[in-house]
Amino acid sequence: MQNRYAVEYNMQHKNRGTAIIFNHMEFDARLNLNPRDGTEVDCARLQSVLKQLHFDVYSYDDLCHKKIVETVAKLASQNHEDSDCILIAILSHGEKGLINARDVQYKLQDICELLLPSKCPSLAGKPKLFIVQACQGDSTDPGVRLIATESLSSNNYTIPMHADFLIAQATIQGFVSWRNTKFGSCFIQNLCTELEEKSKDCDLLTLLTFVCRRVAVDFEGCTSEKQIPSITTMLTRNLFFRDGP
Amino acid sequence: MQNRYAVEYNMQHKNRGTAIIFNHMEFDARLNLNPRDGTEVDCARLQSVLKQLHFDVYSYDDLCHKKIVETVAKLASQNHEDSDCILIAILSHGEKGLINARDVQYKLQDICELLLPSKCPSLAGKPKLFIVQACQGDSTDPGVRLIATESLSSNNYTIPMHADFLIAQATIQGFVSWRNTKFGSCFIQNLCTELEEKSKDCDLLTLLTFVCRRVAVDFEGCTSEKQIPSITTMLTRNLFFRDGP
Repeated sequence: MQNRYAVEYNMQHKNRGTAIIFNHMEFDARLNLNPRDGTEVDCARLQSVLKQLHFDVYSYDDLCHKKIVETVAKLASQNHEDSDCILIAILSHGEKGLINARDVQYKLQDICELLLPSKCPSLAGKPKLFIVQACQGDSTDPGVRLIATESLSSNNYTIPMHADFLIAQATIQGFVSWRNTKFGSCFIQNLCTELEEKSKDCDLLTLLTFVCRRVAVDFEGCTSEKQIPSITTMLTRNLFFRDGP
Repeated sequence: MQNRYAVEYNMQHKNRGTAIIFNHMEFDARLNLNPRDGTEVDCARLQSVLKQLHFDVYSYDDLCHKKIVETVAKLASQNHEDSDCILIAILSHGEKGLINARDVQYKLQDICELLLPSKCPSLAGKPKLFIVQACQGDSTDPGVRLIATESLSSNNYTIPMHADFLIAQATIQGFVSWRNTKFGSCFIQNLCTELEEKSKDCDLLTLLTFVCRRVAVDFEGCTSEKQIPSITTMLTRNLFFRDGP
């Protein structure tokens, strides 16, 4: 049980916890979405970095919405008493909290809510981390737009207002990295670099601030519409990955 | 000019910068909103703490929407070359980015956008900080609801996706602090305490994490619907108030 006045989350449980990656390359043809070439680079690097941080990593390719919900519900039904935290990464098309499964769009909030203390008491008071790389297109067709996203996005950008959640979003605004298909996405790659280089010394929010700097500042001048990641945090303590479980 | 690879924002300019507080106690009668008794306590303490942090503090009571926009537009038209940053605090009724002026509701984004680098180049690359205490009611009438807020809120919760903005919101969910009318709001009071106690040692995000802990965890058990502040950050460097200008 966490000391309620502790400055840092207890990251000394027996296990670091489960990390799930929902990796999306292909979508149902009727959605008219380009394949996300390069996502395999992001997924592989994220797997490797999360394993270095002692997560038990599971990745799933091109799941439909029903399977995504089932996977998270199964995670929620497990006992996380011996875990520090959980992490879910989503690599897909989408925008502002609205994400493409293989078959339909869904709200980030829908899966966040499966992990609320009322549904998953063994994660109460523990960090629930979400990483969302949901880009609008890729370098093979910079002009591609998501069907229905434009009109729906502003209605669906809701964040679960619950303690101990953190949502890190790539939030691309018309910015398409030419590196995407070959080297993965700007956000995930810089996130992985920061996690590799600084997780021993920095708390997670500081580290994510550096990711924002790398993405927002280092790419200055490439395009008039810059990519700015957005971090929404309801964390209640500092989070350090420095100690292995 | 900020070194683009700097880990911390340059907080060594000649001035800390301007802080504006929009303080709302009374609203137009047709809005049917309770007066926000206790907001004067929040406003006075915030003024005092921001002055300790070397801000030039200006506070305005019960402005209408037009005057608020004019005030921020005037701020944007000034030269901030010698300033570290700017800060705007809003103490009012409202919910999720939709805030009550004296006469109408407005979106937080509307005033954020007045401070974009395109409109205020001398603040480019500098922190633009927003503190929003927008509560649903007060202890004199816990049942009061905002007109039109319920249906509009989810449509209007938009955050400006721009580098160097930070928005700290009290985000009350049916939680009404009994301290409100006498001691000010839970969020602003704990924010002030943390700023007073820790701004020499902690960066702003860490300090805001502690505010979240105080509000979310320390009040555990008072009610089933807890208050969880939400911090959305597009900051690209660490922000320390430790050094006076």
